[in-house]
Amino acid sequence: MEHFKYVGKSVPRVDANVKVTGEARYTVDIAFPNMLWGKLLRSPLAHARILHIDTSKAEKLPGVKAVITGKDTPFTYGVTHMDQKPLHMNKVRHVGDAIAAVAAVDEETAQEAVELIKVDYEELPAVFHPLDAMLPGAPVIHEGVEGNVAARPSYENGDVEKAFAESDYVFEDTFETPPIAHVCPEPHVCVAKWDHSGKLTFYVSSQMPSLARTHFANFLKMPESRIRVITNYVGGAFGSKTLSRFPIEFASVILSRKTGRPVKFQHTREEEFHYSTLQFRFVITVKTGINKDGIITGRHFKAICECGGYVSHGASITSVAGALQGVLYRYKNYKYDGYAVYTNVPYGGAWRGLGNPPVHFAGEAQLNMIAAEIGVDPLELRLTNATHAGDTSATGALVRSCGLSKCLEKVAEEIGWKEKRTNPRPNHGLGIACGVHFTGIRLPTMPDTDFAEAKIMVNDDGSVNLTTSCVDLGQGSNTVLTQIAAEVLGIDMDRINTIYGDTETCPMEWGTRASRVTAIGGMAVKKASENARDQILRAAGEKLEINPDDLELKDNKVLVKGNPSIHMSISEVARFNRYRENGQAIMATNHWDAPSHGNISSAFSFGAKAIEVEVDPGTGRTKVLRVVVANDLGRAINPAGACGQIEGGVHMGLGMASTEEIMLNEKGGMANNQFLDYRVLTPLDMPPITPILVETNDPVGAFGAKGIGEMALIGTPDAFVSAVHAAAGVWIRKLPVTPEKVLLAMKAKK
Amino acid sequence: MEHFKYVGKSVPRVDANVKVTGEARYTVDIAFPNMLWGKLLRSPLAHARILHIDTSKAEKLPGVKAVITGKDTPFTYGVTHMDQKPLHMNKVRHVGDAIAAVAAVDEETAQEAVELIKVDYEELPAVFHPLDAMLPGAPVIHEGVEGNVAARPSYENGDVEKAFAESDYVFEDTFETPPIAHVCPEPHVCVAKWDHSGKLTFYVSSQMPSLARTHFANFLKMPESRIRVITNYVGGAFGSKTLSRFPIEFASVILSRKTGRPVKFQHTREEEFHYSTLQFRFVITVKTGINKDGIITGRHFKAICECGGYVSHGASITSVAGALQGVLYRYKNYKYDGYAVYTNVPYGGAWRGLGNPPVHFAGEAQLNMIAAEIGVDPLELRLTNATHAGDTSATGALVRSCGLSKCLEKVAEEIGWKEKRTNPRPNHGLGIACGVHFTGIRLPTMPDTDFAEAKIMVNDDGSVNLTTSCVDLGQGSNTVLTQIAAEVLGIDMDRINTIYGDTETCPMEWGTRASRVTAIGGMAVKKASENARDQILRAAGEKLEINPDDLELKDNKVLVKGNPSIHMSISEVARFNRYRENGQAIMATNHWDAPSHGNISSAFSFGAKAIEVEVDPGTGRTKVLRVVVANDLGRAINPAGACGQIEGGVHMGLGMASTEEIMLNEKGGMANNQFLDYRVLTPLDMPPITPILVETNDPVGAFGAKGIGEMALIGTPDAFVSAVHAAAGVWIRKLPVTPEKVLLAMKAKK
Repeated sequence: MEHFKYVGKSVPRVDANVKVTGEARYTVDIAFPNMLWGKLLRSPLAHARILHIDTSKAEKLPGVKAVITGKDTPFTYGVTHMDQKPLHMNKVRHVGDAIAAVAAVDEETAQEAVELIKVDYEELPAVFHPLDAMLPGAPVIHEGVEGNVAARPSYENGDVEKAFAESDYVFEDTFETPPIAHVCPEPHVCVAKWDHSGKLTFYVSSQMPSLARTHFANFLKMPESRIRVITNYVGGAFGSKTLSRFPIEFASVILSRKTGRPVKFQHTREEEFHYSTLQFRFVITVKTGINKDGIITGRHFKAICECGGYVSHGASITSVAGALQGVLYRYKNYKYDGYAVYTNVPYGGAWRGLGNPPVHFAGEAQLNMIAAEIGVDPLELRLTNATHAGDTSATGALVRSCGLSKCLEKVAEEIGWKEKRTNPRPNHGLGIACGVHFTGIRLPTMPDTDFAEAKIMVNDDGSVNLTTSCVDLGQGSNTVLTQIAAEVLGIDMDRINTIYGDTETCPMEWGTRASRVTAIGGMAVKKASENARDQILRAAGEKLEINPDDLELKDNKVLVKGNPSIHMSISEVARFNRYRENGQAIMATNHWDAPSHGNISSAFSFGAKAIEVEVDPGTGRTKVLRVVVANDLGRAINPAGACGQIEGGVHMGLGMASTEEIMLNEKGGMANNQFLDYRVLTPLDMPPITPILVETNDPVGAFGAKGIGEMALIGTPDAFVSAVHAAAGVWIRKLPVTPEKVLLAMKAKK
Repeated sequence: MEHFKYVGKSVPRVDANVKVTGEARYTVDIAFPNMLWGKLLRSPLAHARILHIDTSKAEKLPGVKAVITGKDTPFTYGVTHMDQKPLHMNKVRHVGDAIAAVAAVDEETAQEAVELIKVDYEELPAVFHPLDAMLPGAPVIHEGVEGNVAARPSYENGDVEKAFAESDYVFEDTFETPPIAHVCPEPHVCVAKWDHSGKLTFYVSSQMPSLARTHFANFLKMPESRIRVITNYVGGAFGSKTLSRFPIEFASVILSRKTGRPVKFQHTREEEFHYSTLQFRFVITVKTGINKDGIITGRHFKAICECGGYVSHGASITSVAGALQGVLYRYKNYKYDGYAVYTNVPYGGAWRGLGNPPVHFAGEAQLNMIAAEIGVDPLELRLTNATHAGDTSATGALVRSCGLSKCLEKVAEEIGWKEKRTNPRPNHGLGIACGVHFTGIRLPTMPDTDFAEAKIMVNDDGSVNLTTSCVDLGQGSNTVLTQIAAEVLGIDMDRINTIYGDTETCPMEWGTRASRVTAIGGMAVKKASENARDQILRAAGEKLEINPDDLELKDNKVLVKGNPSIHMSISEVARFNRYRENGQAIMATNHWDAPSHGNISSAFSFGAKAIEVEVDPGTGRTKVLRVVVANDLGRAINPAGACGQIEGGVHMGLGMASTEEIMLNEKGGMANNQFLDYRVLTPLDMPPITPILVETNDPVGAFGAKGIGEMALIGTPDAFVSAVHAAAGVWIRKLPVTPEKVLLAMKAKK
């Protein structure tokens, strides 16, 4: 193992001080003296034709500066399907669909004006579950979309039917995962501000500021250079601030242009729960053929994804889940049928792990059911079928590094898998599950792009300004990227200023998403740093009259290898290089194209989770006693940060497993859009978590790194459900595992 | 002459809209909710020992957050001589020397607190004129500085004494030019803001933000990467915001660190007049040997520059004036003796043209006196001696391009030199003068550096983000730099966003000063653009399978030369290049080192002025009827902008000639520090100005450009004084030419 000075160290976050003091400025903090506040009029009906919109009363309200409707926003958009409009004039397809927007001198006036807008509707029959939506005669949500199925992503390798026919056992089970919210501490928020030269500055809490610029340049037919998108610090995103555009964004841009004043829109917590995209509801049927030796002979997933009123990420997520599930095991015969289905609920989006948490849940829970059924240790069952480095998956993915078996063994060992299963305590149970996720992604349903960029300037004093295409969403990427640059350049971290989140000066990005920042964004930083390093070594070589190959960078100095008494500070080199005749500044740029062409991803991060649960037989209440998580993250650039990701992932995973669910009222609106009703686990609810970092030194990630952000979550509900079964003897196939469900299942079993 | 699409066109300014609407944000506009205001306690005495400073009452005043003295600012600084301190503890050397600083909740409270600070002084004898300061027994202003002469820059070539002895005529005359203010619309202003990570953001109205960063990194022993200097728009500078540091800057930085709140300091107009550096007073004796054929045989300048209490730019300016005067004519024998002299007045600084306006005034006025005396046409006298392209000057400057004779001929022709001098109208007179100035500068008294930098990103839609090291001070540089990039890249100007003035993301600069931005800053932009262009052509060549040499950029497209039907948009090329496998972004950087090594400057801009004046014999009042200005600017990138520079230069030059003078009261303070008393010419005072642009296509400037900003001023007072002589028969040797002086001279002559 190499010896690194910064890489692999749990250094404190570079933004720790400004964050703990409350000084860090988020988009919610943006305010201008003459700023207007905007509000949307949203549909109270889940499905209706709009007959008439009357904004006249709203326009006359004192303090209202402008009211707009769909006439002012003639744009169509979407992630894969261009089926969305910012403001609807003809039809609404879910409760909360936006119809009009107001800009007023304050938030209260804007809200008052919204309530003065009169809309005449012709209500239409609505449908709130994808299975209902697929039935013959179901309401047609988008004209021409047969059976409300918007997309049918599928994978097939081998012949599953033949495999099933030849298998010792065949199992088929159906699972359901509910819609879940992201619950970002900072809700979706934006401020648009035009200047008199016709330039737009757009402050938005976003994972993809460059894409926001591209989108609005297209919508407004403006050069990208005349749009500046600034993210500031981002208070959580979890996928909800990626490729989706939001009605508030269009409304702020258009209302600001119309009024000549900055206009701010910010989701209320109620809006944020239901209208900021959500994790899609999935109904998944898994059919598995298996032999007595535990080898899976074939597997067929049918995954029905409830898009809601618009496709949004529905098609791509349904596709991703099929692609990735195919990478987990050595499936000889594999089939995946995805259905992205319209219903009349608010549309979903990217949510940590995309479709993998639900589809893995179904696959892994069923595997545990099979293990119980055929009397095989679920750990052994997984090890028997697990993917290994060098494999090419049933879905065509080349796996360059793989710590799956090691992760499984590690969590089993750490939780005491064998001992505890041999001597089970009453009402206690262990569950295990594993998973795989990508590090960046390249799929036919998405733009064929998976790059990151970075720019470096070495200052005269040997300090560095590093500009990255990646946005720090709170996950700590700026710290990791600074570590990478420090490692390559031999420059102290506190001399490196890592800058991000401003499209005017930062290079273009393809998003802080898809668990790609450390490995791919980090590689752009590494390559740019290497370029700068080479310039430093060349200049120092000229000055010292020594071959650059015999020089190295360390402790802010250029040293002669093996003779460190001969040295120059990097500052001296930078100044020598800039101020000599025909001098040059040490500046470098890099565009790193992830080597994922022809592959699903450039790298696959694997992981396993073991969970111990106690179930109260009297109430059905579950208590998680311990979660052990092993993640193959290639290389831990910042182990503390990686462990933080694991804790966050488990937190969301346990929420998905046990408490979180968006519930609808009879109108199709959200019944529990308050923190009191929507049950996010609190710190007091959290069990002890033991993170284990498995390093496989991936050949293509920065310093061997692979993603971790999403894999940290995947598998949690699967292991949880299996632990509940081990403790209580019942299988809960529909998340979340509430005490009520456990109790009813236990009663039914009796 | 080449055919350009953008270069050479009088395109509107890129910042026109935001400026005329009042929307452009200057440093004076910066405000933060919790911002404190700062005020300085300044010395009321011109020369005194400080016995005691008592800040206790000020500290107790409600609303005062901190009071600092020299103990808190242990820094010494200066331009060439490190003789300055931000706050003085032991001695003050001019009225206005800073002693203490206060930060309070508002400006009024800060001022009230300043007035509560009690300082006990021991007053010392003071001296207010450099000739007095050089006398034996004069007060010693800085210990150990003999005769108060801080520097003695000199040049010598040939043997002037021998030349004088052998000349047909020898003349010796003494001239004096007064201290003059810059009168920036935006006074000196700054806001310092620290964050809890220890990073300093410093908003300052500056011509050299990178140098401010370097300075404060040194003072505070911080990495440059942790200091961000932002200029925003700058409301005029004229040299006063270059290498000088100001007490308000130190005070805001230290008080902000101390209070943890942003602290703003802004010169009042009174402070701005006298304490923002000023044009130095010069006393110049010129001795000239000349033969009957009009050939100058030798010339000796003795230039005494009144530094004031500190050297500041005094030494370098005194040096520059000698170097440049030597470039104007083919001096066979040339001697220059400069004296930079301390007195007890506020110190000077860089002022448009540095020492050239005063020293040229003396040289050119005397040449006109000589012409009148020996009966030679002053135009012919100049043409006889004028420098030509290819000359190496008496001061060692290589002149690569020179339009001096052409400028002289053009202004003479345009104003009707021969006819009007043949048939003079009563009380009317013509004057002529010429001059030379640098395009960037490299002198032994200054840091050996003369570079500019630029960075370019080509966006996916073929628009461009251009980041420049140059600051637009209102002179229009952003427009010119945008034109240059547009010309090279064949991209419409409105698709190019030119960004400047933020050290965090902009490349390092060596100042928007020394008439260097268009030629040198422009060259960095041109080279970066050429690099980006080559990347575009290479990528397009690959895509089109055509040799890149056969391609050209035009109208946002790549075209096949001679067959424009084959083309790709630059957007298509950018996208092809970025999104293909192993793609690359089109990004380029450039550091341009001006080829001025071993020379004073990379290029010399010449110019001539002819002025027609009417003098009222009853009152001595002068009226300028017309000013004709010809400037050899190499190439006019934006002719309208160049003409604007000429108008501004003539405005300042006529002010220097006829009205502007800082007058002292008996204490050594400024007697006329109000717009009502300090007479800046108003639009109604301005005569018609005819600008003539002479293009000599300099071999080293961007598209052949040389500087114009300072040369536009130089020669104005010289021509004016000569015109007054032609009209009224009197020579005024001491500026400004007030009606009183003219009347008294006319009376004395009678």
